[in-house]
Amino acid sequence: MSEKAVCLLSGGIDSSTVVGIALSQAYDCSALSFDYGQRHSRELDSSRDIAKFYGIQRRVATINLSDITSSALTGQSEIDNRPLEDISKSIPNTYVPARNIIFLSIAASYAESIGARHIFIGANAVDYSGYPDCRPAFYNAFESALNIGTVAGEIKPFRIHVPLQYLTKAEIIKTGVKLGVPYHLTTSCYRGQEKACGKCDSCLLRLQGFMEAGIPDPIEYEDFPGFYREFLKKNRLMF
Amino acid sequence: MSEKAVCLLSGGIDSSTVVGIALSQAYDCSALSFDYGQRHSRELDSSRDIAKFYGIQRRVATINLSDITSSALTGQSEIDNRPLEDISKSIPNTYVPARNIIFLSIAASYAESIGARHIFIGANAVDYSGYPDCRPAFYNAFESALNIGTVAGEIKPFRIHVPLQYLTKAEIIKTGVKLGVPYHLTTSCYRGQEKACGKCDSCLLRLQGFMEAGIPDPIEYEDFPGFYREFLKKNRLMF
Repeated sequence: MSEKAVCLLSGGIDSSTVVGIALSQAYDCSALSFDYGQRHSRELDSSRDIAKFYGIQRRVATINLSDITSSALTGQSEIDNRPLEDISKSIPNTYVPARNIIFLSIAASYAESIGARHIFIGANAVDYSGYPDCRPAFYNAFESALNIGTVAGEIKPFRIHVPLQYLTKAEIIKTGVKLGVPYHLTTSCYRGQEKACGKCDSCLLRLQGFMEAGIPDPIEYEDFPGFYREFLKKNRLMF
Repeated sequence: MSEKAVCLLSGGIDSSTVVGIALSQAYDCSALSFDYGQRHSRELDSSRDIAKFYGIQRRVATINLSDITSSALTGQSEIDNRPLEDISKSIPNTYVPARNIIFLSIAASYAESIGARHIFIGANAVDYSGYPDCRPAFYNAFESALNIGTVAGEIKPFRIHVPLQYLTKAEIIKTGVKLGVPYHLTTSCYRGQEKACGKCDSCLLRLQGFMEAGIPDPIEYEDFPGFYREFLKKNRLMF
């Protein structure tokens, strides 16, 4: 019998690839998405569609973080547009303090309640764009806290799987394409309009990833940044 | 200038004593309460009244845990009545998986957003009634995870204060009475009726604590358990 796993599924490239990886490793997956006062519900729609595509159970945990923190992702400030080369230099203003810590805590609670000990998260140390809770050392420390601090962890330890930890965005996309991950259903844009903006940090990193993987992004964009337009032109994928 | 602290305030004996202790140590306290799909809102009313009594800011974080876990405290099963001597023997059915881990994660997020590095929690290793996330070792592991996994923790480490860790309920109450903690505003009963039931784990531990401290509990009860009735009689506090 395959082992149960909880996969954090935001609806973006990374988390949907993680679901593809966990399923390819024969885990019995349940997806967990968060409604945390995001600016838009497009992410949640994507995660619903991806779970449906895979035929796996999905639960949504609701947390109101906007009441206690302030960050661009929860709607209190403007989304920055900044050039690609600046993205990895500083913590973006979309940083939600301790966000992955909160998500993993709730994932552990869900895992414990369904008898799962495996938690999959799409964090990434390469493209981590300044989020400290995407760092490898954090996951070891958090795993220890869980195994000491839960009834389930005492009996059989939790394991946090971070399969994208050392992959670049391009490597993630190549992996996902091989596994048939439905990237056409994913959402990455911080603005969450019908078409992706092509200007925010998240769109730029995504398009750079597809470009480096040599694969065109299947979703629609309002506008493309110059580097991606060049890539399409050069590969005769556009015009 | 006094240092900022976030105090988890549930509205019970322990957390209100912790606020009293933190204030007595001259911390600039902000209270954080959780609306996590409890059976009743009485706890939240108590925490509001206690914060008001102390004149401190209070925020309420809303999390819907009932969707992803099942436990008596979030309404899916019946509250057990069991004798006092059984309480410390097993995990009660009011156990919410990883609850303190979730609460501390959100407290860290709040703390980071207001520039606080001190988090006070009323966990207790003596009367912990089987909750593994009340154990001392857990707090050290969690503190490490926070300091590795947050922007704030990197700059200046978080400190989790667990001032009740090694105190019995009676010692907690004696401490609180000296500090003028408003126990008349607190709620402990799992049933959350107008008067405390006097029968659930939480009522029994509370009344045992007051009895051992030699102080009558100022709140109203539907009914008293035999041991507490004896105490009142012996000390001519009733009849």
